[in-house]
Amino acid sequence: MAEHTISFDHNGSVSVPTGTLLTEAAVQAGVFISQPCGGQGRCGRCAVKVLDGGVRRRSTLRLSEEDVAAGYALACQTVVEGDAQIIVPDQDTLERTLTSDRVVAQPAVPPGYDPQRDQSVRRYCLTLTPPTMDDQRDDWSRLQTAVSQQTDLPQLTISLSLLRQIGPVLRQGDWQVTVVVSIGENAARLINLLPGHVPEDIPLLGLAIDIGTTTVSVWLVELNSGEVIAQAAEYNRQIRCGEDVISRIIYAGKNNGQAELRRLVLESINTLVERVMKKAKGDRRSEVGDLESPNLQSPISQSQIVKATIVGNSIMMHLLLGIPAESIRLSPFVTAVNQLPPYTAQEIGLDIHPQAEVICLPGVASYVGADITAGVLSSGLDDAPEVSLFMDVGTNGEIVLGCRDWLVTCACSAGPAFEGGGVHDGMRATRGAIEAVWIDCRTYEPTLRVIGNSKPRGLCGSGLISLLAEMFLTGVVDKGGHLNQHLATERMRQGENGLEYVIAWADETWHGRDIAITNVDIDNLIRAKGAVYAGISVLAESVGVPLEMAEQVLIGGSFGKYINVENGIQIGLLPDMPWDNFKFLGNTAVLGAYYALLSQTAQQRIGEIAGRMTYIELSADNSFYEAFTSALFLPHTDLNRFPSVAAQIEDVKVTVADS
Amino acid sequence: MAEHTISFDHNGSVSVPTGTLLTEAAVQAGVFISQPCGGQGRCGRCAVKVLDGGVRRRSTLRLSEEDVAAGYALACQTVVEGDAQIIVPDQDTLERTLTSDRVVAQPAVPPGYDPQRDQSVRRYCLTLTPPTMDDQRDDWSRLQTAVSQQTDLPQLTISLSLLRQIGPVLRQGDWQVTVVVSIGENAARLINLLPGHVPEDIPLLGLAIDIGTTTVSVWLVELNSGEVIAQAAEYNRQIRCGEDVISRIIYAGKNNGQAELRRLVLESINTLVERVMKKAKGDRRSEVGDLESPNLQSPISQSQIVKATIVGNSIMMHLLLGIPAESIRLSPFVTAVNQLPPYTAQEIGLDIHPQAEVICLPGVASYVGADITAGVLSSGLDDAPEVSLFMDVGTNGEIVLGCRDWLVTCACSAGPAFEGGGVHDGMRATRGAIEAVWIDCRTYEPTLRVIGNSKPRGLCGSGLISLLAEMFLTGVVDKGGHLNQHLATERMRQGENGLEYVIAWADETWHGRDIAITNVDIDNLIRAKGAVYAGISVLAESVGVPLEMAEQVLIGGSFGKYINVENGIQIGLLPDMPWDNFKFLGNTAVLGAYYALLSQTAQQRIGEIAGRMTYIELSADNSFYEAFTSALFLPHTDLNRFPSVAAQIEDVKVTVADS
Repeated sequence: MAEHTISFDHNGSVSVPTGTLLTEAAVQAGVFISQPCGGQGRCGRCAVKVLDGGVRRRSTLRLSEEDVAAGYALACQTVVEGDAQIIVPDQDTLERTLTSDRVVAQPAVPPGYDPQRDQSVRRYCLTLTPPTMDDQRDDWSRLQTAVSQQTDLPQLTISLSLLRQIGPVLRQGDWQVTVVVSIGENAARLINLLPGHVPEDIPLLGLAIDIGTTTVSVWLVELNSGEVIAQAAEYNRQIRCGEDVISRIIYAGKNNGQAELRRLVLESINTLVERVMKKAKGDRRSEVGDLESPNLQSPISQSQIVKATIVGNSIMMHLLLGIPAESIRLSPFVTAVNQLPPYTAQEIGLDIHPQAEVICLPGVASYVGADITAGVLSSGLDDAPEVSLFMDVGTNGEIVLGCRDWLVTCACSAGPAFEGGGVHDGMRATRGAIEAVWIDCRTYEPTLRVIGNSKPRGLCGSGLISLLAEMFLTGVVDKGGHLNQHLATERMRQGENGLEYVIAWADETWHGRDIAITNVDIDNLIRAKGAVYAGISVLAESVGVPLEMAEQVLIGGSFGKYINVENGIQIGLLPDMPWDNFKFLGNTAVLGAYYALLSQTAQQRIGEIAGRMTYIELSADNSFYEAFTSALFLPHTDLNRFPSVAAQIEDVKVTVADS
Repeated sequence: MAEHTISFDHNGSVSVPTGTLLTEAAVQAGVFISQPCGGQGRCGRCAVKVLDGGVRRRSTLRLSEEDVAAGYALACQTVVEGDAQIIVPDQDTLERTLTSDRVVAQPAVPPGYDPQRDQSVRRYCLTLTPPTMDDQRDDWSRLQTAVSQQTDLPQLTISLSLLRQIGPVLRQGDWQVTVVVSIGENAARLINLLPGHVPEDIPLLGLAIDIGTTTVSVWLVELNSGEVIAQAAEYNRQIRCGEDVISRIIYAGKNNGQAELRRLVLESINTLVERVMKKAKGDRRSEVGDLESPNLQSPISQSQIVKATIVGNSIMMHLLLGIPAESIRLSPFVTAVNQLPPYTAQEIGLDIHPQAEVICLPGVASYVGADITAGVLSSGLDDAPEVSLFMDVGTNGEIVLGCRDWLVTCACSAGPAFEGGGVHDGMRATRGAIEAVWIDCRTYEPTLRVIGNSKPRGLCGSGLISLLAEMFLTGVVDKGGHLNQHLATERMRQGENGLEYVIAWADETWHGRDIAITNVDIDNLIRAKGAVYAGISVLAESVGVPLEMAEQVLIGGSFGKYINVENGIQIGLLPDMPWDNFKFLGNTAVLGAYYALLSQTAQQRIGEIAGRMTYIELSADNSFYEAFTSALFLPHTDLNRFPSVAAQIEDVKVTVADS
């Protein structure tokens, strides 16, 4: 058999015969390549870059097409067929390099975006005829005349606060004036009035705001170009009053609770607005240089933000607006309002131009809010020719099934397990959270990926899903979710809370305590995933569409961004479909808000989506309980629904038998 | 000649021949009848009541038809033709008795007023379908459905503050609710939301508000019946920052002046609102008794006031709204705004229901405001078949000439003389102000009528007009307005400020100082009356209509209420027309606001009036200066314009020669 020279970066080279695995060649060369899953191609941690390669990839699981095109290969699944030069990235570099792990931050401006057609907030420079003794019309009539003669705007309305400025501004600008208006169906509303003609390159700014129960995100957008100038996110400061929506509603019912929660979320948003402004100023200072702006104090100021769109679940929207949300919590679970009229920033409490147009996008029901309608828009589900499934999984799993012709939706209370709650060593996805786990099927030793590469402190949602999947595949738990007490490893032990599996020993952890998972934790996780899967099943049944008909699964939400599809399928959270059918869309809610910020059509489409969606109340649906019970197994009572998982179970059995 | 018995009340009787004047009969009977004007029938102070009378009235000047029907006669102008019984009222009783002096307080509800057709603010009791698990529509949609099914209202809008109440209110009322709405063209706006069905007899209240430079008036009105429940007026508290509009504008331009003036006028209005509420509660307590009102704290509360209409001159409107009025003062004299959209009470700052509909009625120009457009409506000028003249004389004289086919208007700066300013012993029309003067043409001794029957402190506007007229007719001043230094009375003397005529000696006055009038004072008065008359002339010339064509003169404004027509004509302030052509309408501004408060049609008509009026800027009109100069005589350079005054001058000459 032919011998080939495999050189590893600057670590020397070895000669191996055709068919040798790259991992074996590395061992011979004394080069360490991580194999957390035990060489099954499941974890993707052994990815290496092949330069001038004579290799054959047996599997490219965990790699995107782009990764492969860039030369990446999974060392445990790649055999030598010629000379090859191999680069082994360290774990850090790897994560930053692989596109499959990369977060898409800057969205593309919608194709063909034309502010003169799409944008509802526009700026116009006007020249007025100065008044004389023969023409003593009042200032406001004079401005209206100029608007009607020099623009194609409908009739203009003006607020009292701007009426207070009109006289001085018109005279300061010597009858030249710049107006910023918001265009509605039958009338345009004056947002701002500036003396003189503001140069075109002074940006007109807007905000896309997503109020999550956990995280608030703000994008600063230049309205004419559509460019996202800066993004920022931080925890929703309401967290101190309760982690989930139900505890927030209860808090709101207490003395001043409503006002306090409103104050806190506004504080979060306004802090983020300051942050994006700072970022934008930092960016701009170098870009724009000494831009002349005779009419503005500085090239960018918060008063230039003249529009905002806001999304969030229905509870977040109620709390933002100071509207009691008590009825959302109690049967029959109704909101005070789903469709809100436009407000001004002043009414809402945003620290931007007080007259800025603020559009709170519409929700559908108590537990299907504007974050979902906006997500459906940005995911393209409402315009999809094929049946698609949209999921936004957090504390509540909101699910939408449909296509351009119909849309059904439901919300299933997944509980806090996926956000690290209800699990002893659970935590939110911050520094120190274990976000991925691989268990060696022979030794039962886990390998961990920890956020921020620090010592582990606990497990976040994606870590828990990953852990549960690995435990199930390697037999650490059985299909009923029970830990295998006979497992041949000291990691399986009786702890304070009964049987537990130790993921990290005290000397490896941040806090010096063991990190372990118990049967109770596992039960909570299974109930959570069972609720989501049952929701999906009931939706499909409600419209008589077999789940397999769904040609794509669109996963939104910041949590969804980190779910590993394979793990999700393995535990029966996600339906068993080819991985290519899954699309991870990141924060679809804020993206929908961004589209609505730019385009009136998008905004209207979200309204139509809210109107079109049929909401199915699961707690009133008899079939839900049955579906839920069936889903309380790993991956499911009916293994026929998860053929790929059935196959993997067999694979693992073979690997173990082989060793 | 036949003798007749004339009995005077309980003071005995005399026998006199046919043709004897009642005043002569009284002298014979030893009964005192006041004759301040010296028996010329000018003053009306000698009015007596004739019971079973055989008398003939030679003149009924100073008496209304109603007075004559009630038996009143002027003793100096009435001759005996048979037996008669005479009652001599004392001066106090007389003033309270004669309708010609009575102030009309309670206006008639507009004929055919139908709140279901005319009123824009209405109340409806609704019954909603409670939500269930099968019907989870949001509260707001549920309310909208009830409104569209149970009323004929257009689409409803709701404020954020009411959205905050909707959930609790609907549940508190067990899905029965009372809504108060303001109906616009394409939409209705929710003003109030009350749990349960509010009984029909709970009043729905509104306010008609007139903001005068000097006096603020508020009427509390029951919107369904149109009844004026209570009225109150007080000085505009802005007076401390300047007596006239110009000094207020200047004050507004100083530090915080704008805010201070706004605060002060709001303080005036809100104090008056409290006062009318107190009055109404006092009235109601006895009327309504133990009215059951399960849903309201008390039968009447300020939050039941759900609508207000406001009129005032343009400066008052700007200051109320906090809009800079600087441009009104400076050439070319333009307002910031004449036509205002509806506001809420909260926006304006009124202490009534925060969502109450507040309609600021429209003005025409800097010096022709909503008080005039409303006055034109309530005077009926805009619908008059004959050419009519409307005047509202205060610091500024606003004049409207027209009929149902056309309207022209102007404002002439009369200066403060008619409000007691610019005259040494001038004062506002409060207690102690001399409001009428009669001078004996033989002795030059004056008789005074003082407000509140107290000792005199000074002269108010009507007193000054009365004084000037009497001085002119009796020769105390000549037609040039110069005091006659050769007059045979010690009242004519050289004072500190030159020649002066003493009206009251120090021992008769409140402050122990002489009250006198100087040539400078007279000059100011003549300039004021000249400006008004010149305005009238220019208006008439501008449309080519001879002033005599005006078939009626409608006099509005609280000052106008007290002008004596005869005196006004005598000094050349008012055109020389038959007295019957003059109609004193009192506060036409607040009456117009009252009509607009009740009727959408009236409100629209005021808008049409504002649109229809052609404003003539006198300071840009060349003919004005000429007309003004000609009017700087008593009564005018051209005595042909004042034939009745020419005749009176002759009468006085005859009377003096006779004596």
